[in-house]
Amino acid sequence: MNIYSSKLVENAVNEFSRLPGIGKKTALRLVLYLIKKDPPVADALGNAIIKMRSEIQFCTECHTISDGKLCVICSDEKRIKSIICVVEDIRDMMAIENTGQYNGVYHVLGGIISPMDGIGPNDLNIESLISRAGSGIIHEVVMALPTTIEGDTTNFYIYKKLKNSGLEITTIARGIAIGDELEYTDEITLGRSILNRLPYENTLSK
Amino acid sequence: MNIYSSKLVENAVNEFSRLPGIGKKTALRLVLYLIKKDPPVADALGNAIIKMRSEIQFCTECHTISDGKLCVICSDEKRIKSIICVVEDIRDMMAIENTGQYNGVYHVLGGIISPMDGIGPNDLNIESLISRAGSGIIHEVVMALPTTIEGDTTNFYIYKKLKNSGLEITTIARGIAIGDELEYTDEITLGRSILNRLPYENTLSK
Repeated sequence: MNIYSSKLVENAVNEFSRLPGIGKKTALRLVLYLIKKDPPVADALGNAIIKMRSEIQFCTECHTISDGKLCVICSDEKRIKSIICVVEDIRDMMAIENTGQYNGVYHVLGGIISPMDGIGPNDLNIESLISRAGSGIIHEVVMALPTTIEGDTTNFYIYKKLKNSGLEITTIARGIAIGDELEYTDEITLGRSILNRLPYENTLSK
Repeated sequence: MNIYSSKLVENAVNEFSRLPGIGKKTALRLVLYLIKKDPPVADALGNAIIKMRSEIQFCTECHTISDGKLCVICSDEKRIKSIICVVEDIRDMMAIENTGQYNGVYHVLGGIISPMDGIGPNDLNIESLISRAGSGIIHEVVMALPTTIEGDTTNFYIYKKLKNSGLEITTIARGIAIGDELEYTDEITLGRSILNRLPYENTLSK
């Protein structure tokens, strides 16, 4: 006996519960909410999901998600193209954008080096960062990775690759507590850490 | 400046965050998850939502959600059609089905009487319950509403409408703690409360 009394509902519940953090009970609550609302509400959600996934692109410069070949930041003439801020993922990029304290461009790694999760340097957008950094336009690379062991490992890996390039390599100020995630940091701390970025060498234990 | 760097993502985040219990941060996590997965995952979710909402019906007998005119329970020849179990919503119906202790049919009120929320008897499927009860097929009405003030009010309202009908009016046993919601009750307690249902009069204070 199908406890949902409807294959349509059962199917929608199953699809919702594939999403991270959504169990069957939550999924059912969402489905019943959509049933209570008029059909255009469900249509708008369904179509937004399908359209977004089929049309989304990745910026050919910085690898962030984008509606075109170049993202809105890389194609913005007012952004300073000589500074690259290196972030783990797009949520960290958004967090920094939210502070309004940064006017350069970004480079989204798509993760950080994490042997435990089987993620090595070749799984990340590091090769393209090195070639961007060597293009002659760049004079500073700002490392804005999480202050975790994995973040530090990734910082160090990139630093070794770039230290002979003559570029200034900085990190966001370590005002952020060790072990914290960037996206949950308050705007003031995060904004100040962009303004007070330090030479990467300063963060190395001697 | 659009912090999502993509109108497509912004739109999907906005649609997700209309759902109950889903804020912008959670919505963004869901959208980024769908971007990481292959397009068929997003398509399946989007299409399941749209199809479900456009094709879903309400059973003409018991008002539960259904894939056809009659739901799977009302159209099941093995279910006893002379007993109606009255529930607040489909989630409570599913909770009772889950116990495997009930073999009659249901009547989904679509809510309970709640003057604070502006919900009166005319907003609920009470009229159709009274006419079903008077059809001659029914001999028992089992009240399975929450043991809250609103549930008791609704119980009493329906009891007054039916008490001269000659039908047996029972309620699920009050083993369930006062103030608890049916859907979160464990199966054993809930199943036993169906088996040990009592004459409604027993629950009235004299």
